[in-house]
Amino acid sequence: MNATGSLWIVGLGPGPAHWMTPEAAEAIARASDIVGYGPYLDRLSLRPDQHRHSSDNRVEIDRARHALRLAAQGRAVAIVSGGDPGIFAMAAAVFEALEGGEPAWRGLSIEVAPGISAMQAAAARLGAPLGHDFCAISLSDNLKPWDVVARRLNAAADGDFVIALYNPASKARPRQIFEAFDLLRQRKAPGTPVAFARAVGRSDERVVLTDLEKADPGLADMSTLVLIGSSETRFVMRGAARPWLLTPRSYGAAR
Amino acid sequence: MNATGSLWIVGLGPGPAHWMTPEAAEAIARASDIVGYGPYLDRLSLRPDQHRHSSDNRVEIDRARHALRLAAQGRAVAIVSGGDPGIFAMAAAVFEALEGGEPAWRGLSIEVAPGISAMQAAAARLGAPLGHDFCAISLSDNLKPWDVVARRLNAAADGDFVIALYNPASKARPRQIFEAFDLLRQRKAPGTPVAFARAVGRSDERVVLTDLEKADPGLADMSTLVLIGSSETRFVMRGAARPWLLTPRSYGAAR
Repeated sequence: MNATGSLWIVGLGPGPAHWMTPEAAEAIARASDIVGYGPYLDRLSLRPDQHRHSSDNRVEIDRARHALRLAAQGRAVAIVSGGDPGIFAMAAAVFEALEGGEPAWRGLSIEVAPGISAMQAAAARLGAPLGHDFCAISLSDNLKPWDVVARRLNAAADGDFVIALYNPASKARPRQIFEAFDLLRQRKAPGTPVAFARAVGRSDERVVLTDLEKADPGLADMSTLVLIGSSETRFVMRGAARPWLLTPRSYGAAR
Repeated sequence: MNATGSLWIVGLGPGPAHWMTPEAAEAIARASDIVGYGPYLDRLSLRPDQHRHSSDNRVEIDRARHALRLAAQGRAVAIVSGGDPGIFAMAAAVFEALEGGEPAWRGLSIEVAPGISAMQAAAARLGAPLGHDFCAISLSDNLKPWDVVARRLNAAADGDFVIALYNPASKARPRQIFEAFDLLRQRKAPGTPVAFARAVGRSDERVVLTDLEKADPGLADMSTLVLIGSSETRFVMRGAARPWLLTPRSYGAAR
């Protein structure tokens, strides 16, 4: 029942070092063991004395248990996520593993280091699309039934929220984003601004601005954050450059 | 029609320096002029050659215009927000000012530096409350009618989202948070976990965990982020310490 180790759940942000917080960098520097998906670990400059525990991107709960086990052995462990670990990333998996795991794990020192999430990187690049009330929805139905996703998309449309879609598509799930657009097109105006913001901040960044009617859901892949405006979201033109995307702070009658 | 200056819209994060990104720090270091609400400017160590343009926390649009005017004069300007400028902060005000302002302003170099927002700091402190689909709603009705707020709260409840409430109360608006709880109590289970996360990361941090039935909305002030769980959100107990708050990645039947 040794629980003297520590576990940091660390958000690396969307990619570039200038979007990783000093807290995240410190947590990694202090760790004896770093656990994470291989490509996230590849972003880090680890010292020879640090142990690297690389895994593929599946079965997050196994990775979380591995990190908790190492911490319970007295190690100083960092488990890393892209983006913010609290937003569709590793934090939930770790606390699920804790809930279902060894009683001693609950005595571990655990801290979460937040990070810039994909919707924030996308919003920063585009202008101010999240300038008003918004929802974040993961389209993955690996862990929830599609009818929950559909119910939330409908509610988000009914509430006229700006919608940020995470995990819109993968090779194993190419169709959900098409179904999501079908559903949203029944409830939102055809001219609603839409952005496909892929890998923002990385070398393969690609941003496409369009509207709900013309949008090709096939543009979305695993690295894409899809933003769909509210009825107030609009483009602010600036000559030949890509327009800014703005959801103003005011709404309807209060304008 | 000189538009050779530049404007950075910079997020300082929730307070502590370890939550400010290197990008934000660099943008401030490069600026000749820093514009912002006084207490945010007080967080920064500015050089004697940097011009400080302090304002009170009202009339964001005037502050935004001032920053754009300075940039249009050829200055290197940073306008700062707490949190993330894209989430209920300065980015929307700047692009609104741009939209309604001098045509030359559209030729300025403008960049947004994202930051850790209050809901992320709160989530990191609490465990993983945002581990699944969520909505962020500002309760301020300064710029939108209350019926829009109410419509969104209802939609968020109907979609069974985790709900992050920004700007829950101020001296001028003490009642909205009570009305919001009245409304949510009609649609969500009494045992739904609720957190009042005040000034997370600052010296006056205070966190209260409760549930929807027992919650006292009077705990919320200007510096409080209120989190209300989904039907899946639960506490993970850990002896005498404050329990973790978890919204698992799975939902209902898929568990």
